[in-house]
Formats: sequence, structure tokens, C-alpha cells
Amino acid sequence: MLSIAHVLARARAMFPDRLAVWDGETRITFSELGRRVDALAGALRRLGLNKGDRVAILDGNSHRYLESYYAAAQTGIVLLPLNARLAPAELVYILNDAGARALLVSGAFFGAFEAARASLRTLEIVVAYGEGNRPTSAFEYEKLLADAEPLTQPVPVEPDDICQIYYTSGTTGEPKGVCLTYRNMTASMLDAAVGLGLTFRDTWMHAAPLFHLVDAWAVWALPLLGAPQVTMHFEPERLLALIERTRSTAVALPPTLINMVVNHPKVGSYDVRTLRLIMFGGSPAPLGVLQQASQTLPTHYTHAYGITETSGICTLQRPEETLTKAGSAGHTVPHIEAEVVDDDDRLLPLDTVGEVVIRGERVMREYWNKPEATAEALRDSWYHTGDMGYFDGERNLYIVDRKKDMIITGGENVYSVEVESVLSTHPAVLEVAVIGVPSEQWGEAVKAVVVLRAGSAATEQELIAFCRDKIAGYKIPKSVDFSAEPLPKTSTGKPAKRRLRDRYWEGRKSKI
Amino acid sequence: MLSIAHVLARARAMFPDRLAVWDGETRITFSELGRRVDALAGALRRLGLNKGDRVAILDGNSHRYLESYYAAAQTGIVLLPLNARLAPAELVYILNDAGARALLVSGAFFGAFEAARASLRTLEIVVAYGEGNRPTSAFEYEKLLADAEPLTQPVPVEPDDICQIYYTSGTTGEPKGVCLTYRNMTASMLDAAVGLGLTFRDTWMHAAPLFHLVDAWAVWALPLLGAPQVTMHFEPERLLALIERTRSTAVALPPTLINMVVNHPKVGSYDVRTLRLIMFGGSPAPLGVLQQASQTLPTHYTHAYGITETSGICTLQRPEETLTKAGSAGHTVPHIEAEVVDDDDRLLPLDTVGEVVIRGERVMREYWNKPEATAEALRDSWYHTGDMGYFDGERNLYIVDRKKDMIITGGENVYSVEVESVLSTHPAVLEVAVIGVPSEQWGEAVKAVVVLRAGSAATEQELIAFCRDKIAGYKIPKSVDFSAEPLPKTSTGKPAKRRLRDRYWEGRKSKI
Repeated sequence: MLSIAHVLARARAMFPDRLAVWDGETRITFSELGRRVDALAGALRRLGLNKGDRVAILDGNSHRYLESYYAAAQTGIVLLPLNARLAPAELVYILNDAGARALLVSGAFFGAFEAARASLRTLEIVVAYGEGNRPTSAFEYEKLLADAEPLTQPVPVEPDDICQIYYTSGTTGEPKGVCLTYRNMTASMLDAAVGLGLTFRDTWMHAAPLFHLVDAWAVWALPLLGAPQVTMHFEPERLLALIERTRSTAVALPPTLINMVVNHPKVGSYDVRTLRLIMFGGSPAPLGVLQQASQTLPTHYTHAYGITETSGICTLQRPEETLTKAGSAGHTVPHIEAEVVDDDDRLLPLDTVGEVVIRGERVMREYWNKPEATAEALRDSWYHTGDMGYFDGERNLYIVDRKKDMIITGGENVYSVEVESVLSTHPAVLEVAVIGVPSEQWGEAVKAVVVLRAGSAATEQELIAFCRDKIAGYKIPKSVDFSAEPLPKTSTGKPAKRRLRDRYWEGRKSKI
Repeated sequence: MLSIAHVLARARAMFPDRLAVWDGETRITFSELGRRVDALAGALRRLGLNKGDRVAILDGNSHRYLESYYAAAQTGIVLLPLNARLAPAELVYILNDAGARALLVSGAFFGAFEAARASLRTLEIVVAYGEGNRPTSAFEYEKLLADAEPLTQPVPVEPDDICQIYYTSGTTGEPKGVCLTYRNMTASMLDAAVGLGLTFRDTWMHAAPLFHLVDAWAVWALPLLGAPQVTMHFEPERLLALIERTRSTAVALPPTLINMVVNHPKVGSYDVRTLRLIMFGGSPAPLGVLQQASQTLPTHYTHAYGITETSGICTLQRPEETLTKAGSAGHTVPHIEAEVVDDDDRLLPLDTVGEVVIRGERVMREYWNKPEATAEALRDSWYHTGDMGYFDGERNLYIVDRKKDMIITGGENVYSVEVESVLSTHPAVLEVAVIGVPSEQWGEAVKAVVVLRAGSAATEQELIAFCRDKIAGYKIPKSVDFSAEPLPKTSTGKPAKRRLRDRYWEGRKSKI
């Protein structure tokens, strides 16, 4: 049976001498990658780690991150990719909650680990690599590999076994571990390959962090096709230089990072003609960003709507429709079945906004050790996304807002994303977030928080006037605040609206 | 769960106004196709046909053929696509063996049906369409649709329910009904889409008959992507004209038909630049044919190895390797697990010829009503293909011969395909088949049967000499016969070697 557990073995047999991974000056063929993964898998087993054990990894994007994914699949170990931006207290919570027995950690994170270490209740084994003061009693990654007895026969796994646990960023309540299975990720791999039309001739650039499903499905889809992956730490010019150097063809970037790249002064200095696709997930890109991007960095831009709980990409826009249907997230990929429901879980017709729900082979098995949260999210076999949206007459999905970001003003629903999309087309606006703030008169009042482009100017009244005739009166911001700093972002690069809202709701009961 | 049963419903919702089918002057959008299929499904149900009933179809390629596939999936009816070249006695055998309750038949086949009719034991319902004297008591297809109460809710099916039964051509013994399931065909659809890199922008030309899995998987893969299919009856110039007219991008053709197209005097008269792919199945293309084809009709040529019992394409060659690795059938597609075994079913190492065996989600459920044949073919969950081949060091599959076409001469195995490949590169050779003929001295002796190009000449001695230094002495034909007629072909366009052999083995005990 087809499974992500076998794709590396398949690739090394079929494409032994092809480039598999490119990380800085390190280039690894599928054959060599296979040998390293056999060694890592053997080493993990020798350390006493077995099928079902949780092994965490804390690193930026690297070839060792990819090796950990493959070695986990080869041993049946459950990989726990940790958000690299977490504070020590959050690391403690997650590692204890998941009952992680081992941690792989790179030099940049030794400090965070040491700060957390004393509070870790289940951690027994640390494997470290990279520069810095290696934590005491940690094993060194490369030495482990050199000394290992390679595990060449994969440990058998079942389709509904857990392969990875991703902790959600936890904007409300405590972080929850999303348990994904081999069946989930195998379907996700196929959906990405079919949906994006990936082939043997592609090279995937991991600019998005490998601890997120923004493109962690590529870990499986690219070897399936015999195609290489490049790992990097995002920085706008570095991305451009690496695309030129590695002749990468495709990359996933949130709109905020696209904005950074296309506004970079050296955007025209690199030859990035091999790039055929920028997939942007996370949030709908404001139209203004897309228009500018299409001019400054011409390629295909594809909006993807994806969720960790549904193992990645759920819908994909066709590149031809990026500008003509801006705001649309496109069509569901093959293994995704999606509908829109009201607050009583009744199916809603086309063109009617409600909560997006998803079912099928892509939906997570459970939240780790949280049966109540699982039951709440997976009602009647439908995963409830918390996203408000609608399908148009051709089943294109439009996400209008997070349920929690929707503003209720004078009894009307205002979707913050719609207002942001209008303001983003103003030439002076670099970044914008629209939130609800307390109002005696309206309950909530619409407010825009704006970062202006360097050298540009605009007044509050001018921006409010700009919205007129473009959206209904009740959606137009009552006020605009200007920020000299970039807007706060979540770890996936989305505007962190909760943090923005908190400033205005202090001492009051906000909705979240 | 993803299933071929839902792909048309999905496509009509997502791509209502896109072209779905192009058949002569008839163009049908996905929306219209959906309405017609709803009506046909309703009509079949009203006629008393239910889930699991076998309904046969006897037609050339047509939009109604496609409609029948979709209506069967919508009702859970088992479609029985009949080889259009069968003699009445063969039709009788198959329809009775399958217990077909209904038959859809087009005008060109009314005669064949009438000749068979009196002997059909289970047939109750005939639905006819097209020109000619409609069989008595037959329903007329279009009238049924016009009068039908549409079935808009698909009948639920399980992944292991049978969706189609294809009868094998039966070169030995009686024809066997290959029972394929929804699971089989869903995996086949994905494998073709991923393997061939098909997208929304493709248009598939059905030049191969829809009663064969050469490309009947396209019935599902193209709507999955929202892409159109063209139906035609193959004739070389008609194919070229239709590619130009419909801007088709991909087609499957056996090497014998590629040969006819690229040798057609008007091959250069049509604009076929939209064509990006010719998949050739059925048999490895002789190198000479490929070399000429690449000159005369430049596009990507991709060798596919496929079998009805494994629901279509098993391996695919990358187009870049068509000439450099001629004879290779390429790599397995994602859902196919293949190995090579000896006569005792022991796995053989790389580079060693044995029988190709296949397992996984693509393997048929059974031969219809033939538990012994099923058990013989599906030993230890591996389907035994009857094809001799080997994997090279990069897991490219090479099919050297049908087990039955292998020649044993003086104790040595000679693979007829290898010898044909050499002779095909001789400039005077248009067609060639290599067979074993009776020999007192050698047991079997290698013989080539050759059709020369119009205006070319070559002697037996010249062709034998041409093989020297190219293959080992024992493989070189001991004799060459020249045929003024085209070589006999099977219904899939392969050389019908059994019929060729029979002429030489009359009155003797041949091996098959």
C-alpha cells in the first residue's frame, strides 16, 4: 500500500545519483540521503527509541530536519516538529504534554533548550548538532550516525498510526497536538503533487519553516517524484540568491513575506526565471500585494488554503485566476471534501458565508490526549476549521475571516480581511490589519492599523475616504491608527490580530 | 473518501462551463455531461437495473461511451466494456459468462448483436443508438434520456465493490473477466495524473479504444483535473487533423499505430504543436520506430507498461529517456509495487530476468466467477503478469518478452522483442515479428517475419547479416520470411504472434 513511509526507499532505488537535498554548501543525493537516514534510524533504535515514541526536533530548516522526518517514518517513531520561535515555557508545555522521550536540537536553540531542561518531565535523550556549547550528556548527531548500525528494513506501520504531531500555535487556550497519520500524509502528498502539477523537473525551496505544514508535505511529495528540495532560513535577498543558485522552481511564502521580497531593492538583481510557482498560504493575499508582486517578480502566484488539522493544502487557486479571482482560495484538492455550515452544523448553500468544515482521508486522527477538544473539533466526522467562508457558483472557496477575527458592529458582520484587501490597494499602504475595538455605540467599531511605505504619506481621513464606494458604509473603518513598527506576526507570518486587539481591549472582556 | 464515483459530480460543480467531451461535432460541457449522466443513470434504474448488475457496452469511442462509464459509477452498476472487434460467438461467451442484464449498443454493432442475440441467456434489456435498423424491443438512448427522471444522488459504493469488468483477449483458454474495483481505479486515476504530470491545461485524445485500459483511466483522471477528453476512431490522418482541431495535448498509441502515423504522407501537413505527449503502451516500441517518430513528429514519447489486471499503467518512462533508454518501461507509478521472481516465486535480484509480479491497491479483485484462475494469478497476494523482465540498477523495468513469446533454442532463451528491436532499425523494415518455429536441431529456431517499406528492398541474407555484431549469434534469426500484407494484430495493436506461429506449428504441439 502506498505510504509516505516508503517514499525515500523508493526514491533512493530509482534515483540514486540525483540531488535530493541542497542545504547551504551541503548537497546530498538520494543514495547518500538514504544511507544517512538508515544510520539515523539505526542510532535512534539503539538509543532505545521505538515505534510510537515521540521524538521532538528543534531546528531551523536544514538537511538534518529532513533526515529526521525520514528516519521517524522508517522507525515508526512519531516526529514532533517544534516551532522554532517558542519561548522556553511553551517548549516545556509541549514536550511534557506530548511525553517526548528524545529531542534533536541544533546550536541556535541550545539556549532555549537549557532554559527549559530542568522542567522537562519525560525527556531522556538529547541529540545535538551544530555550533555552540553542546548540552551536557547530549549525543552528537554526526557521531551517532558514524557509529550506528544502519536500520535498512523499515519498521512496519499501519495507515492509521500517527507519524507526526504538530502543536497548533494556540492563539486561545493551551497548545494542542495535532496527530497526523500515515494515511493523512500520504493523501496530502498526492494532493499536493496533483494540485500543483509537480514533476520530476521541479525543485522545491523550503523557505517556510519545516515545523509547519505550509510545505512540510513537500518532504514526501518531492522524493515521490525524484525531485530535489532546498532548505534555507528566510531572508528576502537570500531567497532570491538561492533561487538563482539552485534553479528552484517552486516555493511557499505567506503574503507578508512575498511583500518583503517584492519590495526588496535588489529584487531585480537575480535571475529567478526558473521559478514557476509561488504558493501563498496562511491568509488571502491583499490584492495590492499581488498586483505589485506580479509586476516586480513575475511568476505564477497560487493561493492555497491549508490547515494543520487537515494535513496541509485543502484548496488551491489556479495561477490564471490569481488576479481575476483575488481572494479566492480556489478548488478543493482531490482528497478533501469541504462544506460550509451554520452554527447548528446545517449545510449552507453556495454563496452563503458560514464555517468551513472538512472530512475525509486528510483529517487528523485526534488532538493528542485531548478527547474533549477532539470531539468538539470533529463533530459528526467533519473537522470544524474556525474559518468563515463560502463557495461561489463554481465551488471556489472564499475565506472571509477567522471566526474570531470577524467584527460585529451595530449588528452587522464585518470580515476584517475584506477591509484589509481594499486598504492594501492604496499606494501608501505597506501593511494593514483591521480589528474590532470597543465602542459604546456599536459594540465593536472597525479600526484599521496601518504601516505606511517609506517616503509615503496618508492621513486617517484620506484612507477612510479611499474605502468609500468600494465597500458598504458599515464596513468602512471608523478610525485608522498608524504604526511605525511592522505589525506583529504569528509564527506562520500572519498578522497577529489578537495581540493588536489586546491593546484596545485591556481591562475589558474581549471575545477571545 | 476519494473515489472515481465522485469525480464527475466534482467536475460539474467546479467547472460547469468547461468543455468536458468533444466527439465529432458534439461538444459537451461538464454541466451538460452531468445532466446527461443523471438522466442515463435515472433511466437505467427505471429499467430495473441496480447496483452490482452487469451492463455491457458495444461501441467505438463516443461521448455515449463516456456517459456510460459515469452513469455506471453513479448507480453502482458494473460496466462491461466489450471489445469492438469480437466475433458474435465471443460476444455470446462473454455476455453469458458475465451474466449481463443489459447492453448498450451503437449502430455499427447492430449486426454483431443480432448474430449473437438468440444465444444470450441473461440479457433482458437493450439500449440502442446511432444509425441502422434498431434491434427489436431496444430502447433508444436519447429518448430514454429525454424521458428519464434524473438520478442526482449517487448510489453509495464501497471501495472494494466492482466498478468495471474487462475481458482479456484470451490468447490462451477462454476469456476471463478482470474485476476492477473503485479502489483500483481511484489509485489508477491518481497514478496516471501524477505519473504523466497531467493538469487542468491538458486535453486527452482517446485514440485507443475505450474498452481497454490503455487509456480508459483517463475517463477519471481528466475530469478530476477539470480537463477535456476527445473521442475518435483511429485513422492516421484523422488523428492528425483532430489534434490540430481540438488542440489535444496527449494521446496513447501502440507502437504499430505510431508507425502508421509517422509514416503517413501528410504527417507534416497538420499543426500538432499542442501535442506534448504520446504514451505508447502495449509493447516496447522498436527503436527504429522511435527514432523515426522523433524526427517526423517531434513530441515527448513515453513508454508505459500496463496491464488490465493491475488497472492500467504500472510503469512509465520519462520522456527524456525515450531514446537513451529505449526498451525501458521506466519506473513504477506511486501505487504499484513490482518485483521480479523465478519459477518458484522467489524474488530475483536486479538485472536478472524473471516474471514480473505486482501487488497493492491497483491489483484486480478477481477473475469473474473463476476462483481457480484467480488463485493461480494472485499467488501470495502478488499478481503474476506472465511478462518476463528485469529491473536495472535504478529500478527501471525492462520487459524482455511475454513468457509465452520467449523462444528456447538450443537451450538458450531468446526474447523475441530484443531481436525485433534490432531488425526494426534497418531502413527497409516497416514491421517485424520474431517467433520460434519447429526445428529438429534446435527445438525451436528463431524466425523473423518482415514487412518491407514500400519502395524498399532487402534480402533474407542481408537482414540476417544486419543482426551480426548487434546481438549474440544464437539470437540471430535462422530464417526471414517476407509478408506483403501487414502483420496480424491483436485488438490492442500488438503483433498477434500466436496467429503467426500457428502457421508454422500446424499439426505439431506448440507450447501454447
